[in-house]
Amino acid sequence: MPKKNAFYAQSGGVTAVINASACGVIETAKASKAIGTVYAGKNGILGALNEELIDTSKETAATIRQLRHTPSGAFGSCRYKLKSIDDSRAEYQRLIEVFKAHNIGHFFYNGGGDSQDTTHKLAEFSAEVGYPLNCIGIPKTIDNDLPLTDNCPGFGSVAKYVAISTKEAALDIASMCESSTKVFILEVMGRNAGWIAAAGGLAIQEDGDAPHMIIFPEIPFEREKFLRRVNQNVKKHGYCVIVASEGAQDAAGQYLSGSTGTDAFGHIQLGGVAPTLAEMIKRKFGYKYHWAMADYLQRSARHIASKTDVEQAYALGEAAVQFALAGKTAVMPTIVRGKGKQYRWEIGEAPLAKVANVEKMLPRHFISRDGWGITEAARSYLTPLIAGEDYPPYKNGLPVYARLKKVLAEKKLPKRRKRRKR
Amino acid sequence: MPKKNAFYAQSGGVTAVINASACGVIETAKASKAIGTVYAGKNGILGALNEELIDTSKETAATIRQLRHTPSGAFGSCRYKLKSIDDSRAEYQRLIEVFKAHNIGHFFYNGGGDSQDTTHKLAEFSAEVGYPLNCIGIPKTIDNDLPLTDNCPGFGSVAKYVAISTKEAALDIASMCESSTKVFILEVMGRNAGWIAAAGGLAIQEDGDAPHMIIFPEIPFEREKFLRRVNQNVKKHGYCVIVASEGAQDAAGQYLSGSTGTDAFGHIQLGGVAPTLAEMIKRKFGYKYHWAMADYLQRSARHIASKTDVEQAYALGEAAVQFALAGKTAVMPTIVRGKGKQYRWEIGEAPLAKVANVEKMLPRHFISRDGWGITEAARSYLTPLIAGEDYPPYKNGLPVYARLKKVLAEKKLPKRRKRRKR
Repeated sequence: MPKKNAFYAQSGGVTAVINASACGVIETAKASKAIGTVYAGKNGILGALNEELIDTSKETAATIRQLRHTPSGAFGSCRYKLKSIDDSRAEYQRLIEVFKAHNIGHFFYNGGGDSQDTTHKLAEFSAEVGYPLNCIGIPKTIDNDLPLTDNCPGFGSVAKYVAISTKEAALDIASMCESSTKVFILEVMGRNAGWIAAAGGLAIQEDGDAPHMIIFPEIPFEREKFLRRVNQNVKKHGYCVIVASEGAQDAAGQYLSGSTGTDAFGHIQLGGVAPTLAEMIKRKFGYKYHWAMADYLQRSARHIASKTDVEQAYALGEAAVQFALAGKTAVMPTIVRGKGKQYRWEIGEAPLAKVANVEKMLPRHFISRDGWGITEAARSYLTPLIAGEDYPPYKNGLPVYARLKKVLAEKKLPKRRKRRKR
Repeated sequence: MPKKNAFYAQSGGVTAVINASACGVIETAKASKAIGTVYAGKNGILGALNEELIDTSKETAATIRQLRHTPSGAFGSCRYKLKSIDDSRAEYQRLIEVFKAHNIGHFFYNGGGDSQDTTHKLAEFSAEVGYPLNCIGIPKTIDNDLPLTDNCPGFGSVAKYVAISTKEAALDIASMCESSTKVFILEVMGRNAGWIAAAGGLAIQEDGDAPHMIIFPEIPFEREKFLRRVNQNVKKHGYCVIVASEGAQDAAGQYLSGSTGTDAFGHIQLGGVAPTLAEMIKRKFGYKYHWAMADYLQRSARHIASKTDVEQAYALGEAAVQFALAGKTAVMPTIVRGKGKQYRWEIGEAPLAKVANVEKMLPRHFISRDGWGITEAARSYLTPLIAGEDYPPYKNGLPVYARLKKVLAEKKLPKRRKRRKR
């Protein structure tokens, strides 16, 4: 019997290190000699549904190695969630058909909570229909909200980017505040979880350092309290640096972004939390402000990725293959933090049944009592995650990132009937 | 006769490498043994007017060395322009009094066009009143708009940041565009000059690479033409990445930022060029978009500074001291690009009379004929300026930047009478 092939797919919002996990999967599979070809889904799970399988064996070993330092999803990712088996039976069936046609016995799904859920369902479905498939989830999310793992690959690098950017921009404001900008706001991602915003707090290394305020989604925003605090900071430090989560909201759950009303045409006003807060401050105090919206820059900033993050991302890809070869299914490798003062981590294992659809929120004791900063507990948790640099190689002043050939495996099945566009 | 002391000040918007020039001045002055103490103006020229002189000899040599890799203005900068000698006679007089009181015979002013103008006027004034003062300008501006120098320190590092960020974010969009974001816009600085926006074009290394469009202030913005082109790019590549200059404007000189009208309260709508363009595209085609506003992050990003830029910034500070010691005044050291294919540069000299109040704009032949990209000429000019990396040291995942003691020299004069607040 020929060796089984593997299928790997990237899912959801990409990160600076998801390709490092891909690299870990592909290199480990190859080195094992127990897996045939690793096929990667073109644009994630859609690649499996459409039988668009990128044959990673057509890439050179050097290109695969480059994935370790290449940001974003090199094979393409997607936002496409398979529903329950009952609701999407045809899709699960199609996946199995494609896998059968290509002798695929290992399924690796690299994503966040939804993807772990899909992996879990596929494990159940394959068992139900009697198709042997090792279904392994590989964690990935900048939002750091997966349970049962100490942290999620992707988060450490965003955290590092946000901490460094906050520190650098704060030096800028500090040097100009006497006669110019007094308030600076950096808006960061993280949806309804304040993990990324909290990372901004790492820029504080000595008393008085910026950021002076963090706006967490977990702490209901109160306009007057906020404005008072901003003013106190400007009076005390000469300037005020704020890291604001995109998910900032008031007690009623109303998001700050877009909450300033609609424009003359009835359209929701442009901009996010940062410009909204800036304008609030300007109207009240007249302070000159600047704000930045890092957006995709923060999650694609491989040039300043955390070494810890890169190593963990790779190791999780590696572990996923080892789990599959050990015949495991419906599991996800995790990061387990060692006890003791010195940061140590090792790979653990979590059943997907317990991972799916559980969000790990920023604990309240990571936020300072007054709600504007992080605690020592948060600092102890976050600091090792941004440790170390892992610079990509450069040519002519720019990082050299992998360029894949993306050769597709020959199709063996008729086209699938697509479900209606949602 | 005791050795003359020197005064150094930072001016205007800060950069990732202005402190490297400061480091060049202070280290060279010390090594020369021909200059006494280097005093740095606290908050730029205001420090001289207020007799707030930071005694750089109170800092350790190691701290001064750290300035080489520390972004922003470590001594404080300011936006404060001295007017003509006739209009601001009292201020020029005050400067001379402060310099006399502290035995200052060398004046180094590190800034853009306005600062070079001030340095020039001070040289004239000191000659007029018979106070011997070597007035040397040191170029600095991210906008790259000073004449007579091939390029300005500060620009190369912003250019590198913008090129890398564009490249990284573009990989993000590319991997998601099949099922998610189709348009990404990065808004960059540069005022009315397209130098920084042009640097985004360096991210293109192969045909089809992003950015697919650059919005230059020099090319009048035409809405319909723009929208048509965006749509062509989405159809062709699956996505469209745009680098937009904050100074983008239409043929009538109307800025795009803030041009979408006022909100319900009559306030100018928040946001800049990027959200304005994004919303324009959304309304016309319905494409999902993301945009980023790098703002201060781009000019403070010392973590990814250009090595060429750092070296030139240092060398210009060094040259400034050498010029002063040679008895020169009313001059500015410049960067002179060598002929030939291999990039070479050396220090040149420009008379401030010819530098002041001249803006060097992005030449039309650096912009492609269709107005959406850069030419090979631009690429040849820009590429060497972003070459090389010059990483700061790190501790606990964060760059270690200089922290100055900023000990002020004892005051010898009565407080100045401030001019009325403008």
